[in-house]
Amino acid sequence: MSNKTWKHKLHEIIYEADTPAGKLFDVVLLILIILSIVFVMMESVKGLSAQTYTYLYYAEWVITIFFTIEYIARIISINKPKNYIFSFYGIIDLLSTIPLYLSLFIVGSSALLTVRALRLLRIFRILKISRYVGESNRLAKAIKDSKAKIFVFLFAVVVVCIISGTLMYIIEGEKSGFKSIPISVYWCIVTLTTVGYGDIAPVTPIGQLLAAIIMIMGYGIIAVPTGIVSAEYAASQKAAIVHINSQVCTNCHSNKHQDGAKFCNKCGHTLFND
Amino acid sequence: MSNKTWKHKLHEIIYEADTPAGKLFDVVLLILIILSIVFVMMESVKGLSAQTYTYLYYAEWVITIFFTIEYIARIISINKPKNYIFSFYGIIDLLSTIPLYLSLFIVGSSALLTVRALRLLRIFRILKISRYVGESNRLAKAIKDSKAKIFVFLFAVVVVCIISGTLMYIIEGEKSGFKSIPISVYWCIVTLTTVGYGDIAPVTPIGQLLAAIIMIMGYGIIAVPTGIVSAEYAASQKAAIVHINSQVCTNCHSNKHQDGAKFCNKCGHTLFND
Amino acid sequence: MSNKTWKHKLHEIIYEADTPAGKLFDVVLLILIILSIVFVMMESVKGLSAQTYTYLYYAEWVITIFFTIEYIARIISINKPKNYIFSFYGIIDLLSTIPLYLSLFIVGSSALLTVRALRLLRIFRILKISRYVGESNRLAKAIKDSKAKIFVFLFAVVVVCIISGTLMYIIEGEKSGFKSIPISVYWCIVTLTTVGYGDIAPVTPIGQLLAAIIMIMGYGIIAVPTGIVSAEYAASQKAAIVHINSQVCTNCHSNKHQDGAKFCNKCGHTLFND
Amino acid sequence: MSNKTWKHKLHEIIYEADTPAGKLFDVVLLILIILSIVFVMMESVKGLSAQTYTYLYYAEWVITIFFTIEYIARIISINKPKNYIFSFYGIIDLLSTIPLYLSLFIVGSSALLTVRALRLLRIFRILKISRYVGESNRLAKAIKDSKAKIFVFLFAVVVVCIISGTLMYIIEGEKSGFKSIPISVYWCIVTLTTVGYGDIAPVTPIGQLLAAIIMIMGYGIIAVPTGIVSAEYAASQKAAIVHINSQVCTNCHSNKHQDGAKFCNKCGHTLFND
Repeated sequence: MSNKTWKHKLHEIIYEADTPAGKLFDVVLLILIILSIVFVMMESVKGLSAQTYTYLYYAEWVITIFFTIEYIARIISINKPKNYIFSFYGIIDLLSTIPLYLSLFIVGSSALLTVRALRLLRIFRILKISRYVGESNRLAKAIKDSKAKIFVFLFAVVVVCIISGTLMYIIEGEKSGFKSIPISVYWCIVTLTTVGYGDIAPVTPIGQLLAAIIMIMGYGIIAVPTGIVSAEYAASQKAAIVHINSQVCTNCHSNKHQDGAKFCNKCGHTLFND
Repeated sequence: MSNKTWKHKLHEIIYEADTPAGKLFDVVLLILIILSIVFVMMESVKGLSAQTYTYLYYAEWVITIFFTIEYIARIISINKPKNYIFSFYGIIDLLSTIPLYLSLFIVGSSALLTVRALRLLRIFRILKISRYVGESNRLAKAIKDSKAKIFVFLFAVVVVCIISGTLMYIIEGEKSGFKSIPISVYWCIVTLTTVGYGDIAPVTPIGQLLAAIIMIMGYGIIAVPTGIVSAEYAASQKAAIVHINSQVCTNCHSNKHQDGAKFCNKCGHTLFND
Repeated sequence: MSNKTWKHKLHEIIYEADTPAGKLFDVVLLILIILSIVFVMMESVKGLSAQTYTYLYYAEWVITIFFTIEYIARIISINKPKNYIFSFYGIIDLLSTIPLYLSLFIVGSSALLTVRALRLLRIFRILKISRYVGESNRLAKAIKDSKAKIFVFLFAVVVVCIISGTLMYIIEGEKSGFKSIPISVYWCIVTLTTVGYGDIAPVTPIGQLLAAIIMIMGYGIIAVPTGIVSAEYAASQKAAIVHINSQVCTNCHSNKHQDGAKFCNKCGHTLFND
Repeated sequence: MSNKTWKHKLHEIIYEADTPAGKLFDVVLLILIILSIVFVMMESVKGLSAQTYTYLYYAEWVITIFFTIEYIARIISINKPKNYIFSFYGIIDLLSTIPLYLSLFIVGSSALLTVRALRLLRIFRILKISRYVGESNRLAKAIKDSKAKIFVFLFAVVVVCIISGTLMYIIEGEKSGFKSIPISVYWCIVTLTTVGYGDIAPVTPIGQLLAAIIMIMGYGIIAVPTGIVSAEYAASQKAAIVHINSQVCTNCHSNKHQDGAKFCNKCGHTLFND
């Protein structure tokens, strides 16, 4: 029984953010994640002193060992470890821990360490407690409702880019940098999204005319996805917001329970609220 | 009678996407269309091995022959072939089949093969069955309702570009790359749409000041079409969505029938639902 | 009396677009305006044959003489010529006619001929009859209602650009192309509006960090004017649309009268509807 | 008592914009602020005559002395000087006055003079009286309500940029200009925000494919913050607008009082309206 209590306490600290200890754990974890990303980024920068690289290497190992302990703790503190291991965060956590071990055997694999950036998404766990949950729930809903339409729209944009790209390839030819149809399609995407690098740009008058038409078109087109999200989001404003906390069920790992819930709404297991 | 049944079955497979066979046909067709576009694109890329070009050439012919058979099958399986041949998709289908035959006689015409990209729009046929139809109907309606206003708006933008372009031509002159008024107008469109290639950029202080004003203006202007589509789309949200399937009438080729319809709502011909 | 009828008929043809003759006049005028703009643009292009420039010069004179006749006709067919001469279109019409005459005395003044582009705005006169009037009225209203807010917003953007530009000047210095504060402010406007020419770009790590912050900020900021117009436009959708035609009062030159109006709503003068 | 009246009058002129004298003072101050910014900017421009720099230096001193007097007047005319000195504008006013004095001792500190641009925000003080107050109140409210959501959104964008940037670093490598992960992340921000300088651009086919995906994604993503502000702003349209004037309490420095208020709504001190 004492062992169970110990496991529950660990579970509460690691998986939940409602208790002071749980909150502290999450904040420390976030700082370590940010530090580790900064270290990986700095490592890729050339021209620092040799000593700095050595320090970065050691710091990297310290953080990796901490992450390893955390990963093991997460597995042992949960009733059904599979629910964690094969969850989105479970895979991210594994991927953000192993690259350094791999780098002992495979050269260059330490660059994969920036997968750790994905762990930053955990920040929403802490924010969950505050009013952000309602916000991001509504935002998520608006994006989800718009997804199908935006997909249809982006698909149409890609079709337009393939056709315009081919036309530009025929009009401009290789001399202007439109070396092949894929390159021309790439140029068309760069133009239609108004990024406009300028590494490839039309030179002939007809090419510039077509480019101008594509741009004006893109200017009108950009209105469409924005309009969709706007309308969906406005529509979602009337929907009620349910207050949810970050309690995690020890049995099924479900982590969205309403305030005051005593049993998991997925598997019926008792929730430990103390 | 047996012949008629055979024709109906073929019609159902080719034109409709409600039966498993019809769905399979459409999916296979889409994959072939995508493959053929990828092949045409790859053919334009320089620096591949000679053998690859030979393979691509053969693959191109295989797909073209399949498209030819499909085109003939579409014509014979319909009661009034003219309705198909002169429809939007009929013309696209013909245009996407003949370039390779033409390339036997005319050099370079195979580049026209990317017209096939337009065939990708068929994807909406398959999606039609799902909830996408409601979405794209509403989206289409919002775009259609906004068209007049966006046209008025884009027309005003073009007038602004002609005037600003001429001013820049007078201010900057040929040294800065503003070689002629059309080029300056082209630059102005590139700037106002926030594409900004950088192949032409103002150099004189007055030119840069005018450019800055154009940009700030463009920043405020971009809000207008977005606002229009947003509002139209929001307004369309209250309109009811009618559920439509992809049944095609064998008589008049009309393909928008409500679920459960037994007769074509355009010509009164019986719909074969089996 | 016969003279008065003649004047009225001319007035109806030139100023109004409700009769077939008036419509035809406006369409011919628009085509001439577009042609004259195309000619002015072509004249600025280098590398055409000497004969082409001669033809363009003659064509320019033909159009200018037509515009001169039109300008005189407009003055004599109206009761109070001052109302026309000092109106927006009156000044535009004068400015688009005299540059060629001036070019006989002053070299280079023919470039001012593109002021004619502003005459293109007359197109809305023809469109007025159709449903476009409602559209552009509502659009104009939404823009007018948003103007104050967008001005406040753009002003804040300029303040941000001045401060960020100065910071970049201090950080990057002259080596990276940030030669002076005005140039840095220009760069900041180019960046914040997402145009991004690339003629000036930060080189130092701190400069790139600040640039990244400016961009992310600009990404969030661009939402503001769009949101304003969207909301205003949606709000204006509930307002009723009054049907207006292009009847022009011969007395006071007011040109917005409701369908079926018999007297001018500004001065009480009788409207000639025949 | 006479001294108190004198202080009140000064207070009314300097801090408030409801009387003609107060309005005039604010307009003169704004013109001086704009002039001083123009002078600082011009000073950074190279290639002007030596005499111009001398004039600019003198003008700078004249304005600084005026600002110094204004700063002292602000302190002595208020009952509790601390409320002003440590307020936002108090700090800005100090920062915009001292750099020139500092420049006598420290070389280069005069560049800090553009902090004066922040003083331009005072313009809203004058505009306050007009209908702008309602507008900017609503705008401010919409932005404030959207802040949390836009922050969540921008945070997600940064995470996406870190991951995509690292991928591009691995794919493109140093040859294409992707020298380190921070540089690649910088490139990714430049691309996703559609700025697109073109100083760094992908060269390999896989890099260009990933870049195209990032752009299309960015195109869809830009819709989100716009949608949020639109919806919030539209929602705020129903809220009532309270008319507020720029009366400042001599006791607690609170400056938002409703029209006709006789006592400060923060400390209960009498407001001098004469």
